[in-house]
Amino acid sequence: MTRLHFGKGQLSNLKSEVKALGTNVLLVYGKSAIKKNGLYEEVIQQLDGFNVVELPNIDPNPRLESVIAGQQLCKTYAIDVVLAVGGGSVIDCSKAIAAASCYDKNPWDLVLNPKLIKKALPVVACLTNAATGSEMNGSSVISNLKSQEKLGFNSHLMKPTVSICDPSWSMSLSAYQTAAGAADIMSHVFENYFSQVTDSMVSDLLSIGILETVMTYCPIALENPTDYEARANLMWASTMGLNGLTGVGKGGAWSCHPIEHELSAFYDITHGTGLAIITPHWMRHILSETTVARFVLLGKKLFSLKGSNMEIAKKTNDRIEAFLRSLPIEKSLEECHIDDSLFDTMAQRVLMHKDLSKAFVELSHSDIVNILEKSLQWN
Amino acid sequence: MTRLHFGKGQLSNLKSEVKALGTNVLLVYGKSAIKKNGLYEEVIQQLDGFNVVELPNIDPNPRLESVIAGQQLCKTYAIDVVLAVGGGSVIDCSKAIAAASCYDKNPWDLVLNPKLIKKALPVVACLTNAATGSEMNGSSVISNLKSQEKLGFNSHLMKPTVSICDPSWSMSLSAYQTAAGAADIMSHVFENYFSQVTDSMVSDLLSIGILETVMTYCPIALENPTDYEARANLMWASTMGLNGLTGVGKGGAWSCHPIEHELSAFYDITHGTGLAIITPHWMRHILSETTVARFVLLGKKLFSLKGSNMEIAKKTNDRIEAFLRSLPIEKSLEECHIDDSLFDTMAQRVLMHKDLSKAFVELSHSDIVNILEKSLQWN
Repeated sequence: MTRLHFGKGQLSNLKSEVKALGTNVLLVYGKSAIKKNGLYEEVIQQLDGFNVVELPNIDPNPRLESVIAGQQLCKTYAIDVVLAVGGGSVIDCSKAIAAASCYDKNPWDLVLNPKLIKKALPVVACLTNAATGSEMNGSSVISNLKSQEKLGFNSHLMKPTVSICDPSWSMSLSAYQTAAGAADIMSHVFENYFSQVTDSMVSDLLSIGILETVMTYCPIALENPTDYEARANLMWASTMGLNGLTGVGKGGAWSCHPIEHELSAFYDITHGTGLAIITPHWMRHILSETTVARFVLLGKKLFSLKGSNMEIAKKTNDRIEAFLRSLPIEKSLEECHIDDSLFDTMAQRVLMHKDLSKAFVELSHSDIVNILEKSLQWN
Repeated sequence: MTRLHFGKGQLSNLKSEVKALGTNVLLVYGKSAIKKNGLYEEVIQQLDGFNVVELPNIDPNPRLESVIAGQQLCKTYAIDVVLAVGGGSVIDCSKAIAAASCYDKNPWDLVLNPKLIKKALPVVACLTNAATGSEMNGSSVISNLKSQEKLGFNSHLMKPTVSICDPSWSMSLSAYQTAAGAADIMSHVFENYFSQVTDSMVSDLLSIGILETVMTYCPIALENPTDYEARANLMWASTMGLNGLTGVGKGGAWSCHPIEHELSAFYDITHGTGLAIITPHWMRHILSETTVARFVLLGKKLFSLKGSNMEIAKKTNDRIEAFLRSLPIEKSLEECHIDDSLFDTMAQRVLMHKDLSKAFVELSHSDIVNILEKSLQWN
């Protein structure tokens, strides 16, 4: 379980939280963002007196090479705690390092078979981006460039011990990052909401509440990046969007994430962007008389739509697509310079990696190719 | 933090969970309910091999005497774990016992000053009623008949280590208990929702989602007590209604609970019933141009109401009152055989026990008396 410190100035808890876990710290972060916005300085001040080893330059789709580098550093410097300072990629990578540091072989084994994870170093996360929810769950997604695979894996042992979430740090995000993060949050919610289990009302209404929060506050954060209320609501939506709560009573396989993971694996595109492109096409693809009720609930609650069930459902999809296309991120695969040449391979890979027979609507090879083809262009 | 096992058949986890905590078990339960529905038998089977000491007959408003009895049993039998099997009263009492067992003097000291709680035995709760949320928080409410006080207190050390929540066990509840539980859940949500902090959208929409869940499923559970979907949604609403989530970003003092606690302290009425009687009168009392926005959000989301803000707010109150008065519980204080003779004393006591200057709308002595007077009769 993760102890969260949420709000302005919560970084002041870092020193005591890390102290309780050890003295040798692996500090994991991304490119230059935290050096530009002053967070790096603040973290280093908090770590005065600790032995700090740094692992910078984690990529947006964090790579196996970084995990291996972190694994080696942990062993060499007898690291006690992995401190992630950044967004979901940095936290995901840190979690994988925390598990890898207690494993003697190639950490990719753990990605492929998380049951091999028997132990992990504690992870402390300082979150800078509202997106993945990685700050309060046991999931991690790692890319293997050699095998062109981007795979998620999960272990409760990888849950951050402590996460410090100060929404102020997300104020320096670019509009692009803010928007891609918002799309990621929304996708997590959709993945749990669109489930064959439809009798978990608290989970459903929480899901819809998170969607409304993101759709309300993302435009405000884009308009005024330093609006604390907007940043705080987005960050809390991110945490609540994937800490397990929206999935209570649910189950079944996710649909858009496995497809997006293939896009990122082959083209290294931004995860949230890939999800934003695919999701509306997937929603249209799965809409039928059988599935319409889920769309209707969404449309009534989120947009107060009226009409026949199928009318409401179609309008719901239009409204969600309109929102996602209004964001300052790519609107189609072509805009991401992706053509259809690998669609067949990607569809194969999706089905190799995931059992989509348990999805809300089972997707076949041709379904996946169809969704990807529709995603090539917009309007 | 509490590890929850939620769903049908989860009692099978009891043995291993208790085993991890010790061998000497204090089994705390209420009157005859768990013997009638077979739960007692099942629990005893799970406890085969443990040393079990029993403390039955916990009252609906659990009493200091029971806490003292439990405290003594814990010391005499070197109890390792307090096992609560019942609803909120049994769990509240068990938490107080768990703290009292690590304290040498009168446990009422701990109620008055929870900072004195430095240690507590682990509590395992098997929940049978959807109501208090006690299964996943550190709160307890204890009644002191001598001093005519019913007071809540809180310590993270009293949070159940494990809670096993099988909605099936709530199927044998009476209509009265089911209804009073539903009113209790709704009141918890209102207490956090009606806060001066109005920028926590995720918390607000979760709150409204819980209200909708209760108002949807309580009538179904009353109509068909063995409807699992209804029981499960009510139980999860209870847990989510007071595990801290609806209060994220909120703060301030509660209003109806302190008033109801005085009613129960002097007249020993059912907590949920007292709340159901008071709440609509409190809502009308605090409605003003300043507070109207909170009511409007509620009315739009919960009942799709339209009109001017004040119209929506008034209709919202009417709808909530209509729901609460439709429940098979008392509708007024007179129905509970309560007259106005102690209103003055109770109002004094409320303000002695709680600082209501931090409430959503500050309540004075005359405000409280006024709300109580309005609650005397219905229609």
